[in-house]
Amino acid sequence: MKLKVKQLQFETGNILVVVMNSEDAARLGQKAGDRVLLKSVQSKYSKPLIAILDISYTDSLIAPGEIGIFIDTFKRFPQDLKTDEISVTPAEAPDSFAFIKKKIQGKKLEGNEITAIINDATSGHLSQIELASFITGVAINGMDDYEMSALTLAETNSGEFFNFGPNVFDKHSTGGVPGNKVTLIIVPIVAAAELFIPKTSTRAITSPSGTADSMEVLAPIAFDSEELKKLVLKEKACIVWGGALDIAPADNILIEIERPLHMDPIGLMIPSILTKKLSMGVKNLVLDIPCGPGTKFPTPADGRKFALIFKDIAKSVGVTAECALTLAHQPIGHAIGPALEAREALTLLRDYSAGPNSLIEKSTDLAGILLEMGGKAEKGKGQELAKEILHSGKAYEKMKAIISAQGGNANIKPEEIKVGPYEKEFYAIKPGHITAVDNSLINQIAKTAGCPHSKTSGVEVFKKQGARIKEGDLIFKIYSDSSSRLKKAEKIYNSSGGPIILGGMMIERV
Amino acid sequence: MKLKVKQLQFETGNILVVVMNSEDAARLGQKAGDRVLLKSVQSKYSKPLIAILDISYTDSLIAPGEIGIFIDTFKRFPQDLKTDEISVTPAEAPDSFAFIKKKIQGKKLEGNEITAIINDATSGHLSQIELASFITGVAINGMDDYEMSALTLAETNSGEFFNFGPNVFDKHSTGGVPGNKVTLIIVPIVAAAELFIPKTSTRAITSPSGTADSMEVLAPIAFDSEELKKLVLKEKACIVWGGALDIAPADNILIEIERPLHMDPIGLMIPSILTKKLSMGVKNLVLDIPCGPGTKFPTPADGRKFALIFKDIAKSVGVTAECALTLAHQPIGHAIGPALEAREALTLLRDYSAGPNSLIEKSTDLAGILLEMGGKAEKGKGQELAKEILHSGKAYEKMKAIISAQGGNANIKPEEIKVGPYEKEFYAIKPGHITAVDNSLINQIAKTAGCPHSKTSGVEVFKKQGARIKEGDLIFKIYSDSSSRLKKAEKIYNSSGGPIILGGMMIERV
Repeated sequence: MKLKVKQLQFETGNILVVVMNSEDAARLGQKAGDRVLLKSVQSKYSKPLIAILDISYTDSLIAPGEIGIFIDTFKRFPQDLKTDEISVTPAEAPDSFAFIKKKIQGKKLEGNEITAIINDATSGHLSQIELASFITGVAINGMDDYEMSALTLAETNSGEFFNFGPNVFDKHSTGGVPGNKVTLIIVPIVAAAELFIPKTSTRAITSPSGTADSMEVLAPIAFDSEELKKLVLKEKACIVWGGALDIAPADNILIEIERPLHMDPIGLMIPSILTKKLSMGVKNLVLDIPCGPGTKFPTPADGRKFALIFKDIAKSVGVTAECALTLAHQPIGHAIGPALEAREALTLLRDYSAGPNSLIEKSTDLAGILLEMGGKAEKGKGQELAKEILHSGKAYEKMKAIISAQGGNANIKPEEIKVGPYEKEFYAIKPGHITAVDNSLINQIAKTAGCPHSKTSGVEVFKKQGARIKEGDLIFKIYSDSSSRLKKAEKIYNSSGGPIILGGMMIERV
Repeated sequence: MKLKVKQLQFETGNILVVVMNSEDAARLGQKAGDRVLLKSVQSKYSKPLIAILDISYTDSLIAPGEIGIFIDTFKRFPQDLKTDEISVTPAEAPDSFAFIKKKIQGKKLEGNEITAIINDATSGHLSQIELASFITGVAINGMDDYEMSALTLAETNSGEFFNFGPNVFDKHSTGGVPGNKVTLIIVPIVAAAELFIPKTSTRAITSPSGTADSMEVLAPIAFDSEELKKLVLKEKACIVWGGALDIAPADNILIEIERPLHMDPIGLMIPSILTKKLSMGVKNLVLDIPCGPGTKFPTPADGRKFALIFKDIAKSVGVTAECALTLAHQPIGHAIGPALEAREALTLLRDYSAGPNSLIEKSTDLAGILLEMGGKAEKGKGQELAKEILHSGKAYEKMKAIISAQGGNANIKPEEIKVGPYEKEFYAIKPGHITAVDNSLINQIAKTAGCPHSKTSGVEVFKKQGARIKEGDLIFKIYSDSSSRLKKAEKIYNSSGGPIILGGMMIERV
C-alpha cells in the first residue's frame, strides 16, 4: 500500500510510531500496536524502517491514502523519510520480542539476546507496552550477574562513550535524601588532588533539586561531546548534565517507562548506574547508598546486600567500586533547592568553618574513599586528606576553575546567589528538642514553592534531629519565586504542623 | 495552572490522555506519563477528571498556555470538558496502581482490588503501560479461582448486560483452527430445538475470518442493545457482532494490549470468555477447545487441564459449562474466508448430503451437547438429534428466519454468494496421499489474498489428510478481489510448495 506522507507536529516518546487512517489499516489487516514496514517510494538510498501503528478515525488528521509521521521520527530518520510517498506492508515483531517473552517465562537471557532487546529499544522497534512488559518481567524474575553485565555493556554500546585514560574516578548516589549537594564538594576536592573526575549528573525528576540543577546556578551544564572533551582535558574535572550527551540512550528509554511504573528493579538499576559510568570511561567509583525510609533501601541490611551485588557486577565490566552506606533520616546540610544548595556548597568551599558539619562529614567521607582508591592517601587516611584539601582552600580554587571552564562566573560570592525573593520564616512556638525531620514533607513543600523548575525556590532547615530549641528560635524558612506558590507551600506547612518534629525530653511519667 | 482547551482530531486508544507544552509541564513539575487533575474553570457542574500527560515540544501543536484534548476523551466526557479553560494540577496514581504492584509482587488480589483495577482501566485512569505491566504480572504470577471469578464479575459490571431469562444457551471456541464456521450450523440447530441462543461473535483479528465476518456476508451483524433485544425475543437466536454492543468494555481494553504483546494468560482468558457470556445472560455453555499446534493448547493434556479450571470458574459465576476437546490439525470443512465459509455453511444447511463430513460431525457434536444440557435429548443422544434437525431442513428454515430478522436476504442461494472474482486453481503434480495440511500457511495465503477485509477472498482446500490423489486432481484454490493480491498469494503457494503435504505410502526401503 502506498501512502502520502503527512508530518505531525507532535512528539510521542515512542520514536517509531506512524498513524494510518482506520480504513487503510483495515485494508492492510493491521490494528493499533501492530508493526508496519516503511519504504520510501522515491529514494533508492533510504533504508526500510519498521514502525508501530497508531490509528486515526478522523480524516481531518489522517485521511485515507495518507500516513502520519511524528516529528521525533522525522528528526531521527531524515534521509529515510524525506519522501512524498511511502510504501507500507505488514511486519512482524522483531526477534528481540521473543527474548522479552523468554524473560517473562523466567528464563535466563544470553548476551546476544540482551543486546538485541537493547538495540531494538534504542531504534524504536520495540513499543512502550512491550518495554513495560520487559521491565515488569525483570522486576518479577530478576536478572543474574551475567545478565546484568551483558545489559550494562549493551546499554553502553547504545550511545557514545569517552576514553580519558586508565585512571578516571567518579562518585554516584542511589538517591533519596534531600539536600544531598555533596557532589559539589567532592568533585573539587578529588580534582584538587589531581585525580581525573568527569562528573555527569541528572536533573531532578521527583526531588526538589538534582546535582545538575544546583550546578546550573553556578555555570552552564549542557555540553556536546567535543566541548566536554576539551573541558575535561583542561581541568581534569567537570560537573555537567548527562542529558545533553548521547551516552546510553537505551538506558534513558527504559527509565522513561520505569518512572511512571514506579519500578526500578535491581536488574535494571545496576546496569543503569554502571552504563553511565562506563560511557564516561570511569574505572574507579564510590557509590553512596543512602539507607532508610523514603530511599530505595529501607534498612542498612538491604543496602549492604545491594552493595555486594553492585561491586561484583562493576568488577565484571572493569569498574572498581567501593560502596558507602549513609544515613538518610534527614537532609544533608540545611538547604534544599537548586540555588540554596549551590549557595550552601559554595559557602563551605570558601570557608570550612561555615559548615554545616553533616555536609563536611559526608563529603569528605566519600571523597576520602576516592583519594584512597587513587593512591593519594593510605587506607583509613582518605577523609583526613579530604578535609585538609577542603580546609586549605584548594578545593575552592578548583571549583572556581571548573565554574570558569564551564563558562560561569568564578568570582561569584555565595551571598550574591539569588534566592527567593518571596520568603517566609517559621519559629518554634514552644521549647523542646527535635525528635525527627520529615524528608517527604520537606520535598513536598520545596516542590510546591517551585523547585526544581524555579531555581531560586526551596527551603532551609535550621534545626535538625537532636537539637535543643527555645521558644521563638528560627527553625524553617521557605523561599519562592512567586507569592502565590509561597502561600501554597505555607499552607502545607501549617496544615501538617511542619516537617520539624518537636518533642519533650520526658519519655514516661510514672 | 489554567490552560486553554485545544481539541485534537486524533484518537489515542488511551481514553484519558492530554497534551501540554513542555514548558508548562516543566513548570508543573510533570513529565510524560505522569497524571494531572483536570477541572473545568467555567462549569460548576463538571466533575474533575484525572488524565495521563503527554508532552508537546512544538508550539504549533500545543503552545504554552494550551492543553490538548483528544477527540475520544471529548466524546467520553462531553459535559466535563465543554469549557474554554481547564485548571490543571499534579495528581497521584489511583489506588488501583498499588493493586497492580501487589500482583507483580506475587500476591493474591482481593475482589475490591480487582474491581478497582477494572474500573480504572475502563475509565482511562490506568495508562497503557500500566495495564501492560498488569497483564505481564498476571502472565507470570497467575490468578487463582477466586481472582478469576472476581475479575469476571468486575469485567461484566463494566458494561451493559442482558437478561433473557433462566435458560440461555451458547457456544464458544478458544480458536486456532481455520475454516471453523461451526457456529453458523450450531446456532440454527439449537434454536430450531427451541433453545434460546443469542450468539455474539468477533471479527477476525489474526485469522482470515471470524464468525462475525462470515455472518456479515448473509446479513447485517451490528445492532445496538434495543435492536438486539427485539431481535432475540423474536427468533430466540441471533448471530451478531459483539463489538457493536457495550458489553464488557474493560475486557476489550485489556485485549487491545494483550494482542500486540501476544499474551493471553489463562488468568485473563477465562474471565474474558465468561464475561462476554454473563453479559448476554448465558447460563449454559459448550466450549470448543481445539487442541494441537497453532492453537492455545498444543496437546490434549493442556486442553483438558484448561477445561477443568474453566468449568470451575464458570460454575462459580453461575454458568454451567461443558467443554469439548476438538481436533485442530487441519481446517474444518474445505472453505476459508468470509464468503466462502458462509457459502459452505449455507450449502450444508440446505442439503445435508452436500457435507462436508468434518463440518457435520463437529457442528452436531457441539450442538448435541447443548441439546442434552437443555433437556432436549438424553445424555449420549444429543448428536443424533442434532443430525436429525440438520437433516430435516429445520435448521435451514431457522437460519433463514435469523438472516431475515437481522435484515438479510433469507432467500439467497449458496451459489449466489459472491466470491473471487480472481481465482487460481492448483492441481496435484504427482499421485500419492495427503500426509498433512499446513494451517498456518493456509491462513497466510488467505490473508495475502485479502481476508478478512475482502469478504470474497479466501481459499478452498479440496483434499485433506488421508486422501489419496491422482496426478492432475484439483487440490487447492485461491480466490481474491484483486489480481495483484492473487498474484502475491500464488507466490506464497509456489515458493512453499503449498499447504497440502503429499507423501508416498512407503515408509522405509530396506
